Amino acid sequence: MADPRPEHVLSDLQHGKAECRIVKVDRSSDLHVLHDLNVTTQLRGDFATAYTEGDNSHVHATDTQKNSVYALAREHGVTSPEAFLMVLADHWSAQPWVTGTWFAAEQHAWERLPANGHSFVRSGQETRTAWVQTYGDVRFVLAGLTDLVVLKSTGSEFRGFPRDRFTTLAETDDRILATSVTATWRYAGADTDGATDWATDWDTAYAAVRAALLGAFATTHSLALQQTIHAMATAALDACPDIAEIRIQCPNKHHFLVDLEPFGLDNPGEVFHAADRPYGLISATVTRAGAAAEPRAWAGIG
Amino acid sequence: MADPRPEHVLSDLQHGKAECRIVKVDRSSDLHVLHDLNVTTQLRGDFATAYTEGDNSHVHATDTQKNSVYALAREHGVTSPEAFLMVLADHWSAQPWVTGTWFAAEQHAWERLPANGHSFVRSGQETRTAWVQTYGDVRFVLAGLTDLVVLKSTGSEFRGFPRDRFTTLAETDDRILATSVTATWRYAGADTDGATDWATDWDTAYAAVRAALLGAFATTHSLALQQTIHAMATAALDACPDIAEIRIQCPNKHHFLVDLEPFGLDNPGEVFHAADRPYGLISATVTRAGAAAEPRAWAGIG
Amino acid sequence: MADPRPEHVLSDLQHGKAECRIVKVDRSSDLHVLHDLNVTTQLRGDFATAYTEGDNSHVHATDTQKNSVYALAREHGVTSPEAFLMVLADHWSAQPWVTGTWFAAEQHAWERLPANGHSFVRSGQETRTAWVQTYGDVRFVLAGLTDLVVLKSTGSEFRGFPRDRFTTLAETDDRILATSVTATWRYAGADTDGATDWATDWDTAYAAVRAALLGAFATTHSLALQQTIHAMATAALDACPDIAEIRIQCPNKHHFLVDLEPFGLDNPGEVFHAADRPYGLISATVTRAGAAAEPRAWAGIG
Amino acid sequence: MADPRPEHVLSDLQHGKAECRIVKVDRSSDLHVLHDLNVTTQLRGDFATAYTEGDNSHVHATDTQKNSVYALAREHGVTSPEAFLMVLADHWSAQPWVTGTWFAAEQHAWERLPANGHSFVRSGQETRTAWVQTYGDVRFVLAGLTDLVVLKSTGSEFRGFPRDRFTTLAETDDRILATSVTATWRYAGADTDGATDWATDWDTAYAAVRAALLGAFATTHSLALQQTIHAMATAALDACPDIAEIRIQCPNKHHFLVDLEPFGLDNPGEVFHAADRPYGLISATVTRAGAAAEPRAWAGIG
Repeated sequence: MADPRPEHVLSDLQHGKAECRIVKVDRSSDLHVLHDLNVTTQLRGDFATAYTEGDNSHVHATDTQKNSVYALAREHGVTSPEAFLMVLADHWSAQPWVTGTWFAAEQHAWERLPANGHSFVRSGQETRTAWVQTYGDVRFVLAGLTDLVVLKSTGSEFRGFPRDRFTTLAETDDRILATSVTATWRYAGADTDGATDWATDWDTAYAAVRAALLGAFATTHSLALQQTIHAMATAALDACPDIAEIRIQCPNKHHFLVDLEPFGLDNPGEVFHAADRPYGLISATVTRAGAAAEPRAWAGIG
Repeated sequence: MADPRPEHVLSDLQHGKAECRIVKVDRSSDLHVLHDLNVTTQLRGDFATAYTEGDNSHVHATDTQKNSVYALAREHGVTSPEAFLMVLADHWSAQPWVTGTWFAAEQHAWERLPANGHSFVRSGQETRTAWVQTYGDVRFVLAGLTDLVVLKSTGSEFRGFPRDRFTTLAETDDRILATSVTATWRYAGADTDGATDWATDWDTAYAAVRAALLGAFATTHSLALQQTIHAMATAALDACPDIAEIRIQCPNKHHFLVDLEPFGLDNPGEVFHAADRPYGLISATVTRAGAAAEPRAWAGIG
Repeated sequence: MADPRPEHVLSDLQHGKAECRIVKVDRSSDLHVLHDLNVTTQLRGDFATAYTEGDNSHVHATDTQKNSVYALAREHGVTSPEAFLMVLADHWSAQPWVTGTWFAAEQHAWERLPANGHSFVRSGQETRTAWVQTYGDVRFVLAGLTDLVVLKSTGSEFRGFPRDRFTTLAETDDRILATSVTATWRYAGADTDGATDWATDWDTAYAAVRAALLGAFATTHSLALQQTIHAMATAALDACPDIAEIRIQCPNKHHFLVDLEPFGLDNPGEVFHAADRPYGLISATVTRAGAAAEPRAWAGIG
Repeated sequence: MADPRPEHVLSDLQHGKAECRIVKVDRSSDLHVLHDLNVTTQLRGDFATAYTEGDNSHVHATDTQKNSVYALAREHGVTSPEAFLMVLADHWSAQPWVTGTWFAAEQHAWERLPANGHSFVRSGQETRTAWVQTYGDVRFVLAGLTDLVVLKSTGSEFRGFPRDRFTTLAETDDRILATSVTATWRYAGADTDGATDWATDWDTAYAAVRAALLGAFATTHSLALQQTIHAMATAALDACPDIAEIRIQCPNKHHFLVDLEPFGLDNPGEVFHAADRPYGLISATVTRAGAAAEPRAWAGIG
């Protein structure tokens, strides 16, 4: 049956199951290994009649997608969020009516307590993220982190900005610089044949990028949060050759020096008010020279 | 000075002030009028040396952007989120080094209490959203709503979906359908000369789209949430001719019928467990036939 | 077996199931009636050996408590949060080893859409709350609301406060007064025989108190948020004779008039910054003269 | 002037400033020391006429309280949340019309990055909490932690619970036990003369209790979450002789073993669904034998 409303063009169809909270325990040794994931699936494909007619004959029920996440975790194991999303991509790309897929995972970190091999405390410094999406045989893998909150209590300036009639901000050569880093990077790789023969060791790559971000944040004498972002991005590219590009977005979590003069007190960089809103928001992408732009890789990724 | 890291390509530079919480009171009559906005600004332009060298000579400080939001609200007033973002776009598009802008607003609704003209209660059914972004002289206006939570206690089925080895879901001809609608639409208009001569009455358009969404949700006998989304989208396009396209994303907020058989009780559609996670997530875009695709209009919009 | 650690005194034992999200649909007419509740159960009693020895022979499993909530909703129906918590109290007070109970409910409001009798939009002005707790045959019923966000754009002063060396605040005779009301009240009633023969019509009482709170907020010319709180509390007691006492806690959601003088602009009560933190926090209890103090009624209630 | 409403009894008056976000940097060495606090103040006293008449002559403005927090941090320094709240208690107890005080602090943890002495990453395992409250010359100090999320992937059973007609839960001898510990303890001490001569080293005590809680969680073979709570509480009392009593509240963050049988798969404790709501909620207090009960110490503390 034809679309009853031919004057309207339907596009960007997606459906899936969001936020499957899966905890996978590897008990193969006394040192249990935890993977604590929040997985979202999204399928693209030949699903138009569900929208136009309520015909579900092509609709992979989101309940089935959820079941598949849990069952495939048992069948294939979970070694990293990226590898597990690859398993999902392999499975769903082979299903009828599916022409593309989009999978996301957040991984929560746990630290083993010293007492034994099966007791853990949640380690909350950041959330690790990963995405795999496919367009037919083309496959993209992205990874990242969010909520990595960092602060420098000195070594940050902000000066030399233009002044217009709405400018009241004083220049400073010593301020607190604090932010919550969100970084997302795209892995280069064998991305045109749909195969899973990527050479990257996902955990090693993640650790290298995370360390590079923290190191660059700490060691950059910051003239602007922009400069710190650039330093973090280039450090990440330098640290991990498998990355083709990286996007970083950082709120400037303002810490305002409190004016204590009305109370007869000085305040030499000691007492700050940590403000909530508004906050500066700065972002940039840095791409390795020669890497192709891949806008499709970033579809639906914040 | 050249980029010290020529092997890296810098792009997608943006900076601005996020979440300026501005409340504007119009006291021109005894019936005060409130606009309660959460405004975010983002500028694009010739800012690369801030990243590569920490040279801020082109950086419009985010503090200045915040001041501008408040001052421009006083100078130009606030009549709607869209109109106010237009004021910001006019102002910032004329600044040096700025080649593009991105502005967002959330508007919180208040309802006047009967006692007098200046007492209000927050009305929380949804948050109204708006965006204006510019690329040189090209200007896009989008609007929307989020967190419009709706539920049907009957009139919803889900049947006829394919079954594979991971399918366990039973078919149903009577379920609760509940969702939290996020809809975003793009206004057609005089968008190539940077002018503010849009004919749309933003508040009237918003009200028409909102009513169309609610009406279509209520009156569509739903065979799939996809069908309901399509019905809502087409109803919005029909209700508001100024809209070129609309995107809708809906979580399926599952309400599971509780199995009371173990307790010797039937449960004819009466007692449900409202689940949190996971949830289905369904989306689509519907474009008026003949309207050009404008991917730039959607940059950075969820 | 004796407590292996006699040098320690164990007390305040409670266990239950928190946040049972139950939606009850009454389909007895074409105008469906929704009760959307978030129910928490807590039992007190002879449970010490579970703590000291891991002996669960007296432990009513929290899973059983959850099942009971759903099953009792089917058996007894849900007419109001208070009445439903009474059903839970009747059930659990009769169980072995239980000497006391504590039940809480949040009720989310829905508004029927005009199209038919089974479509609803979530109406988010506030969350209705209720508690029933028992100590043997003594039973207390409390109710309330939270997140009732109100604002006056004039009719609020703050002057005449003492000044010490840390005082910088200017006096004002016209400010925005905004708050998010949390009010909790205790019903007087036949509370000593464990019976459910309370005469109160819970929905009518709730509506009367809510209206009284809103009316007093709107009509009180406020010299202090304290005064407004007192006016709201006394209005509630006047409006609903079944209430013995009421507690109100209000954050002062500061709206700061933005200083536009640096930009050559005045700001006659028009442009405000709505701040997040810190915020004033004011509270009080008002008890009807002659009503007994009942501290046990308030145990575990915010 | 008399209360215009003598038929109403006003009580439990409190006002203060909530959530003062103060970051104090100690720069006395190259290894900067951060204290990142969220401080709330509440005063009790002779404030009734503010409520009944809007007479603010006794009202210590909450803005002044905020200023005092920042200024006193500069004057007296911040060495621990407990010590800083003692400074606030000393200051405010000496003010006119104040008969009691209540102060709370949350402390966010930061870990120094290796690069230098002034770069930090937020360490999110838990939030440290503290309270000081005074009633005239009587002073109570409480401390605690919240959001300490822990998990055991084995070593947890739940069996032997009674079964009634609503019980469906199967017994298990091997489940995941996960919780988010909230613990609050009261320090014994020289609490009757209002002096600050407490002998406790607050940071050492905190570390000892935290370690005891984690150790007991890990090493207790759990037959019930109740038993684990009791083990944690007694371990804390054993580890820190300065503590008179400790309250622990733990949600049972259910991890349900996914039934993979419909898919022809076994699931020997490997794949779990981490559920959100509802959750079990278990609590208890353990007091050192001989310590006096001090209900006033716990007023207004969750």
